[in-house]
Amino acid sequence: MTSNELLEQIRKKRSYLCVGLDTDINKIPSHLRSEPDPVFAFNKAIIDATAPFCVAYKPNIAFYEAMGPRGWEGLEKTLNYIPQDIFTIADAKRGDIGNTSGLYARTFFEYLNFDAVTVAPYMGADSVTPFLAYEGKWVILLAHTSNEGSQDFQLLESGSGRKLYEEVLIRSQQWSGPDRMMYVVGATQADKIASIRKLVPDHFFLVPGIGAQGGDLRAVSEKGMNAQCGLLVNSSRAIIYASSGTDFAVAAGNEAQKVQQEMDQYLQQYL
Amino acid sequence: MTSNELLEQIRKKRSYLCVGLDTDINKIPSHLRSEPDPVFAFNKAIIDATAPFCVAYKPNIAFYEAMGPRGWEGLEKTLNYIPQDIFTIADAKRGDIGNTSGLYARTFFEYLNFDAVTVAPYMGADSVTPFLAYEGKWVILLAHTSNEGSQDFQLLESGSGRKLYEEVLIRSQQWSGPDRMMYVVGATQADKIASIRKLVPDHFFLVPGIGAQGGDLRAVSEKGMNAQCGLLVNSSRAIIYASSGTDFAVAAGNEAQKVQQEMDQYLQQYL
Repeated sequence: MTSNELLEQIRKKRSYLCVGLDTDINKIPSHLRSEPDPVFAFNKAIIDATAPFCVAYKPNIAFYEAMGPRGWEGLEKTLNYIPQDIFTIADAKRGDIGNTSGLYARTFFEYLNFDAVTVAPYMGADSVTPFLAYEGKWVILLAHTSNEGSQDFQLLESGSGRKLYEEVLIRSQQWSGPDRMMYVVGATQADKIASIRKLVPDHFFLVPGIGAQGGDLRAVSEKGMNAQCGLLVNSSRAIIYASSGTDFAVAAGNEAQKVQQEMDQYLQQYL
Repeated sequence: MTSNELLEQIRKKRSYLCVGLDTDINKIPSHLRSEPDPVFAFNKAIIDATAPFCVAYKPNIAFYEAMGPRGWEGLEKTLNYIPQDIFTIADAKRGDIGNTSGLYARTFFEYLNFDAVTVAPYMGADSVTPFLAYEGKWVILLAHTSNEGSQDFQLLESGSGRKLYEEVLIRSQQWSGPDRMMYVVGATQADKIASIRKLVPDHFFLVPGIGAQGGDLRAVSEKGMNAQCGLLVNSSRAIIYASSGTDFAVAAGNEAQKVQQEMDQYLQQYL
């Protein structure tokens, strides 16, 4: 998907919501457990209910991998079920030497046909560039993550006076443009998003941490939005586990709609 | 596996060789392609031929993942086939927020029963500690990798005068001891291994880059070995693709034996 196509979806739906499909077999409603593929049955209902209100889905690959081969089958079915005009993100946090990153890229971009994959920057340019070789596909590079451990290394100051995550943002902009790369910027550091936006005016940010992790949508939107929106804000558990009863899909749709309505207000400044 | 059990294997086999099972369906000998599971048929023959000369196997997860669900089945069969007294490493380079890292740990330590998994440090302590909660299981943390991109961020100097990879080595030693954690230290920087050994006297290093990547076994061994060996040196392509004919397993065994015989000499200093 191109950045223009993504922007068109954002305008049309008045939303920059990404729904995280962190589907845990132990958390899905008990009435689904007798389905032949409970995880896919759950995802299918969640997608039906939330698709009008979101522009992206982000399956967290760990949840599918933990189920073995049938987890991968459920992931593939989920991907095929997501409407073509919705952006798909493999939250995989991969990154390895060149030929290995090339294989991960093949898995997520060719075999599963995701639009984007999250990548860790520690191994540097040649661990990321194999993911950038695909037209219309995206790298979403970890910059400043939302967890407590982000303070351990990402905030280390280098000799240049810049923090590690700032070095990642600056150097990686030489690897590709804002039509092929986004950045993970945690919502729990809303005060930082404004300064990060100055370093990276044009790229999209994927912002996790709204909902269960405690980030604030208003602050993130006011500080991080640019004239092309430039934000995908993710919510996982607060939406997909809004109810554990038979009404789980309706409840998820309602939660997604609430977020979308709030996003509609913040979008009015630009779009 | 405990560090004592690993050391016992090293003493017994006079080897600290790790064979990388980077098994690529497009590179295995053509006569295996008619097998019901060509990748497993290849791995089985490689394991039979090399097991007397190595103490560890390291499947590169990207290669299995790229084949979809049947890749995971082949990986599981391979794991079950590896003799119990040989150390197994999932080269997966995972690392995510706590609950997600916990799921990756469950996949590799419980579902697949690997002894160790490689983990990327960018997201900090709480992305790594879920992997450290398993008795007898190991984290192998990326410190100084063997690829060119290692220079992009790992060599950045922080305000303290230390490079990022040194910060990773120092801080992570507070997370767990040398019986639960190892470090990835690339062989292409043999001159650095001596200084890294000073920072980390007791831990094992997993050293990739021998063979196809051009690292030098003598230099690595002289500079990196400690009184408990402290090294696992990996070779992948140079061993498993030593021949592309029907003699591939014999050729792999011969290559592994050559490396083992060289290692025997270097071990004599300590063991």
